[in-house]
Amino acid sequence: MLCFAQYGYIRKTVSKQINPGIKLGILGGGQLARMLALSAHNMGLQPHVLSENSLDPAQQVTRFNHVGSLSDLSVVENFLKQVDVATFESEFLDGTLLSQAHQSTRTPIYPHVSTMELLQDRLTQKQNLDLLKIPTAPWLPANQKQEVDAAVATLGLPLVFKKRRFGYDGYGTFVVKTKADLDAFCSQQLSNANGYIAEKWIPFKRELACVFARNIDGKVSHYPLVESLQKNSRCFWVKGPVKHKKFSDFAKKFSLFLKKMNYVGVMAVEFFDSREGLLVNELAPRVHNSAHCTMTAFSVSQFDLHIKALLNQSVAIPKPHAKGYAMVNLLGGTSPKTQWTLDEAVQLHWYGKSETREGRKMGHINAVGSSPEAALKLALQKLKRMHL
Amino acid sequence: MLCFAQYGYIRKTVSKQINPGIKLGILGGGQLARMLALSAHNMGLQPHVLSENSLDPAQQVTRFNHVGSLSDLSVVENFLKQVDVATFESEFLDGTLLSQAHQSTRTPIYPHVSTMELLQDRLTQKQNLDLLKIPTAPWLPANQKQEVDAAVATLGLPLVFKKRRFGYDGYGTFVVKTKADLDAFCSQQLSNANGYIAEKWIPFKRELACVFARNIDGKVSHYPLVESLQKNSRCFWVKGPVKHKKFSDFAKKFSLFLKKMNYVGVMAVEFFDSREGLLVNELAPRVHNSAHCTMTAFSVSQFDLHIKALLNQSVAIPKPHAKGYAMVNLLGGTSPKTQWTLDEAVQLHWYGKSETREGRKMGHINAVGSSPEAALKLALQKLKRMHL
Repeated sequence: MLCFAQYGYIRKTVSKQINPGIKLGILGGGQLARMLALSAHNMGLQPHVLSENSLDPAQQVTRFNHVGSLSDLSVVENFLKQVDVATFESEFLDGTLLSQAHQSTRTPIYPHVSTMELLQDRLTQKQNLDLLKIPTAPWLPANQKQEVDAAVATLGLPLVFKKRRFGYDGYGTFVVKTKADLDAFCSQQLSNANGYIAEKWIPFKRELACVFARNIDGKVSHYPLVESLQKNSRCFWVKGPVKHKKFSDFAKKFSLFLKKMNYVGVMAVEFFDSREGLLVNELAPRVHNSAHCTMTAFSVSQFDLHIKALLNQSVAIPKPHAKGYAMVNLLGGTSPKTQWTLDEAVQLHWYGKSETREGRKMGHINAVGSSPEAALKLALQKLKRMHL
Repeated sequence: MLCFAQYGYIRKTVSKQINPGIKLGILGGGQLARMLALSAHNMGLQPHVLSENSLDPAQQVTRFNHVGSLSDLSVVENFLKQVDVATFESEFLDGTLLSQAHQSTRTPIYPHVSTMELLQDRLTQKQNLDLLKIPTAPWLPANQKQEVDAAVATLGLPLVFKKRRFGYDGYGTFVVKTKADLDAFCSQQLSNANGYIAEKWIPFKRELACVFARNIDGKVSHYPLVESLQKNSRCFWVKGPVKHKKFSDFAKKFSLFLKKMNYVGVMAVEFFDSREGLLVNELAPRVHNSAHCTMTAFSVSQFDLHIKALLNQSVAIPKPHAKGYAMVNLLGGTSPKTQWTLDEAVQLHWYGKSETREGRKMGHINAVGSSPEAALKLALQKLKRMHL
């Protein structure tokens, strides 16, 4: 079994004192990078964005535009040379390339590339959670037919097969309920990816999520737990705060996990609230859709918090501005023009994507209210009146 | 005496419904334009900035950069053609040019150019305040020697002479206490500007300020009153909320003033709290330094509110997040590197100016606390630890 990653990285000394205007490099140009860049501006930093298209959502919100491929070593090196510290919006980057670029430029990248690599692979992610006995759905590797058969024999059906890498929003996930499903999966999918894991099917009451933060000094904090609802494997809404009696135990254990990982930045945890308790579904070493409500509901958003963690600043989380908060994703539809009004309790975040596609995340609505349910109701009412 | 401006502007119909991604043009590239552009991004709009330098503070926070002179008709026309609605960060623009550009492009500009012209001239500003009997320091025109003598005869010394146009942060203001001062002013200053007004010297207890907003439908709102302290004629700090027994009467009267002006956007009012009561010192038809604390203390900042007003959205102001709030300006000093830490209750806004100059506004600190005084104390403590 794998051990925790080794952290042999060169690290520039990071002091608690920072200079305004320091350059934050963001690898990636989507909505998460966009919201990180806006936070950086608001915190007195200079955000630089590297992505393939000069009109990507994140490129639109800064003058410090770098256009190029994240898979091109010289492009990434050139970018890192021009910034003081860097981060990424997706864990599916080429770790080998990124490590090389980090070694040659000595520009710190947080979260550490080694952690990104461990967590981008569901197999090593599960192994590392197991090492600290953090409860997840029972699982086995399923890289070849032999392992698939062993998984069926040990865990039984139904099983969920998940691609080890590059899966998101349900892509790369296959639910196998019957022997026929299994045969179809083995013949049509198994050889198409560099390996799968097989997970026991977990019937859950609800899905929960939480964003943690850890700074360079090792200080850990987290936002309150939220509930999320997925539609067609995509996050539809989030509401919070919610409670789970096992969460405070989990939070303690997870702090240890973050320490072992020498983690720096925010990390999102998705849970199943099931008969077996609070099970970790998956981790994402980055800012996350489930915590977008923090933009409105807290004076320090998850984007602010991520940046604070990687600049070794305080990651304390202030009390929320409201008793309840909620977020609804705006998924692309068929209407050519979306209509909107600007209210107090409900806020639109629009990502500026140049193309609307069915199901594509085009923006989100944040709402606050007297309870999580009240906030969610407001957000859903608002959604109804839009024509996506 | 002049009447209220005529509003013969062509106006595209503005509906309560807006489309995300609509293009907001901002004339000017300084810190006020920068914070407007960041608000626009956060509200789902696409901010376009026109200014002379491609690295001006506001140009840094958007990809929609337009570089050129605000005094060049074809540049301004070309800019207006590319946006849906426009605003400005300074009232000292060329009204004739702007009107022409507005007429030829039919792009709405808010506040109306005619209002900007009325208020950029202290003489017409005073005349219009007088028309509604809004109390100000007693004044008289002082364009030539004859008028100066009449002002001295009527109002007595000391007198404050203020340039009718382009005065800010004490520039263009001359305090005349003695006959010798008066002779010096007349020989050295009087012919250097296109006219002055003479104001009776008002000893005041404190200076107060308030930002109002009015949308296209005529809905009016305002933030609470704040107190400000000037050092060397520059705003040093602001704290709020504060009270004045005459303020609610003033607010009613001022709503009428805004209506007569057919005003759209936010307008800042600066007051003297004096023995003669609450006197208006001056008006600024734009976002204003005295309301920067609204970025932290309210879920709708003055920048958000200005944009909402000119999109004919609700201008209701939610309750503040804290019982007290304060702002301290960061004025350029001699240190090559400013040091900073990111806290919860205290926020840095850094404008990204390429050059530090003694006394130049480089950024500001916002703080919240259990009272205005507690917030101010926090902000001042933080300032002490910086090395500007």
